[in-house]
Amino acid sequence: MSNSENSQTPIGNFGKFGLLDHLTRNVSIKNKGTVKGIGDDSAVIDTSGELSLVSTDLLLEGIHFNLIYTPLRHLGYKTVIRAISDIYAMNGVPGQILIGLGLSSKFSVEKVTELYEGILLACRKYNVDLAGGDITSSLTGLTLSVTATGTVEREKLVNRDGAGPNDLICVTGNFGAAFMGLQILERERKLFSRDSGFKPDFAGFEYIIERQLKPEFPANVVRHLKEADIRPTAMIDVSDGLASDLIHVCRLSGTGCRIWYEKIPIDLETSKAAEEFQMDPATPALNGGEDFELLFTVPVDYADKIRDIPGVSLIGHMTNADLGYKLINEEGSEITLKAQGWEMSEG
Amino acid sequence: MSNSENSQTPIGNFGKFGLLDHLTRNVSIKNKGTVKGIGDDSAVIDTSGELSLVSTDLLLEGIHFNLIYTPLRHLGYKTVIRAISDIYAMNGVPGQILIGLGLSSKFSVEKVTELYEGILLACRKYNVDLAGGDITSSLTGLTLSVTATGTVEREKLVNRDGAGPNDLICVTGNFGAAFMGLQILERERKLFSRDSGFKPDFAGFEYIIERQLKPEFPANVVRHLKEADIRPTAMIDVSDGLASDLIHVCRLSGTGCRIWYEKIPIDLETSKAAEEFQMDPATPALNGGEDFELLFTVPVDYADKIRDIPGVSLIGHMTNADLGYKLINEEGSEITLKAQGWEMSEG
Repeated sequence: MSNSENSQTPIGNFGKFGLLDHLTRNVSIKNKGTVKGIGDDSAVIDTSGELSLVSTDLLLEGIHFNLIYTPLRHLGYKTVIRAISDIYAMNGVPGQILIGLGLSSKFSVEKVTELYEGILLACRKYNVDLAGGDITSSLTGLTLSVTATGTVEREKLVNRDGAGPNDLICVTGNFGAAFMGLQILERERKLFSRDSGFKPDFAGFEYIIERQLKPEFPANVVRHLKEADIRPTAMIDVSDGLASDLIHVCRLSGTGCRIWYEKIPIDLETSKAAEEFQMDPATPALNGGEDFELLFTVPVDYADKIRDIPGVSLIGHMTNADLGYKLINEEGSEITLKAQGWEMSEG
Repeated sequence: MSNSENSQTPIGNFGKFGLLDHLTRNVSIKNKGTVKGIGDDSAVIDTSGELSLVSTDLLLEGIHFNLIYTPLRHLGYKTVIRAISDIYAMNGVPGQILIGLGLSSKFSVEKVTELYEGILLACRKYNVDLAGGDITSSLTGLTLSVTATGTVEREKLVNRDGAGPNDLICVTGNFGAAFMGLQILERERKLFSRDSGFKPDFAGFEYIIERQLKPEFPANVVRHLKEADIRPTAMIDVSDGLASDLIHVCRLSGTGCRIWYEKIPIDLETSKAAEEFQMDPATPALNGGEDFELLFTVPVDYADKIRDIPGVSLIGHMTNADLGYKLINEEGSEITLKAQGWEMSEG
């Protein structure tokens, strides 16, 4: 342990209930649906007759995040974004999250408190209650499990399998930013690991690094869709990569798709970073992942209504299944889309 | 890799969706509340106007289980028991579970399939639907997160904080069995690690080993309580240890407690194993943990009604807070109870 860490409090100083109490002592319940939050066997939620939505994610150190360049506050924040994006993707409203935490002894109480500060900041911003969780020791690093719950009116529920041929394919925000942010972070980490006097330089890439470390979710688009009385035919949050998640909707809906490369929104910083890595910007945009944007389909008559919603782009349309999954490039050639979002690690 | 494992299929042969599809291809939905199970961004649950219950647990290899003597089928089964016990402890009925799985490359598809067989066996037995989850690679062994959801009628909800002075303290089943089962397993493992020709001998300890590896939950008691129209004033599932969980209810309810050692149900095998380890059977019974029994309190007038419920024992009563947490031993002396159920590992 280095000198600068001498003032840190070992987590062993607290018992299980003590540590949870310490971390959650300032948690106040805001949603009227949260009948009972932290401190009992389970959270109790009043869905007031709406359907209940539940989703869970598992995040492991070394696989999903590298603590060398990931501040724990940001990691906590991103964990909440990851969880609630699954609830929004059902056209629902998130209400509660539960956090499971596995901690090795390298984490002090102060470090875990930072993680919780990020979690609670995102909870406040997105109006969700931290309503429960579990905490345990771990032999190896940090393990995070996150469960999000929410509600949706019965007739507003949107699944992944409802798209039809000719439906328009819409996306929020832009793609590939988080992936290119990660490449920049990894490049600087490698240079730093060779020469500890090296000063990492992120100038000009602030936006894509923020997209990697502390992303936001386009919750306002879900609200705009409701206000415009548009119920998408299918919806998914893009976390595995635009191509992979689009193909997933196509498979479940029994359709093909055709998207135009020039219509895919890509931020200038993403293109600039791709150029530095001698990469076609289409690669991170289609296969990068962790975009935390929404992809949804609507009937073709909704084109004008969709154009009025800020932050939404039309990138193509669904087709009959036998036409396959196609990207039209700038020269007008058809390229077959492939799902490349995920591989099992060999670790 | 040994010869006998040559026929195993590496998990890398499947993509993320492929592996989940493979593992869950035989999952059928049984509860009418499960509107949408596996295969979308989140599970969709119709609580039909009842309150929704959500609980999450995190289980890590090396902390919560040792795969040297834990068959993966049993581990899957126990994971479900652990999860649904939190829902029953709110006087609710579990309906769905979601499983998050972190896998290192040492796990083959066949091994993961065994784990899922155990999960699905418990789901069938306890009438819950496997309704979702997440799967990811891991650098180090097996990580399991489990989220259970369920429902409870508004007026039947039981929290941990409702016990009053003089309420009777009731428990299901018996205590210390899982802990002593673990001691036997650990003893044989150590002997085996010194001499690989050694044959582990579990004769006479089958019951307590089963309590450790493949426990059941007294779901029928929750039903009996409902049929007898008894709503406990407080309830908790005993997973951290009888003393720890009882004190937890006392603290939240603002009471003290007095329990009689001779009333605490302890199985003969537990006592026999404790004797072999030169341990007072009270130690595993009070502090062992992983009992997956229920502890609940009822008003004193319910004494006769409670005695009619099979599998329930009265072990003492709540007191005013200033009387503290006391065990009366066989000689009639008062001993102060301490919560010893949990410590952070130093690993």
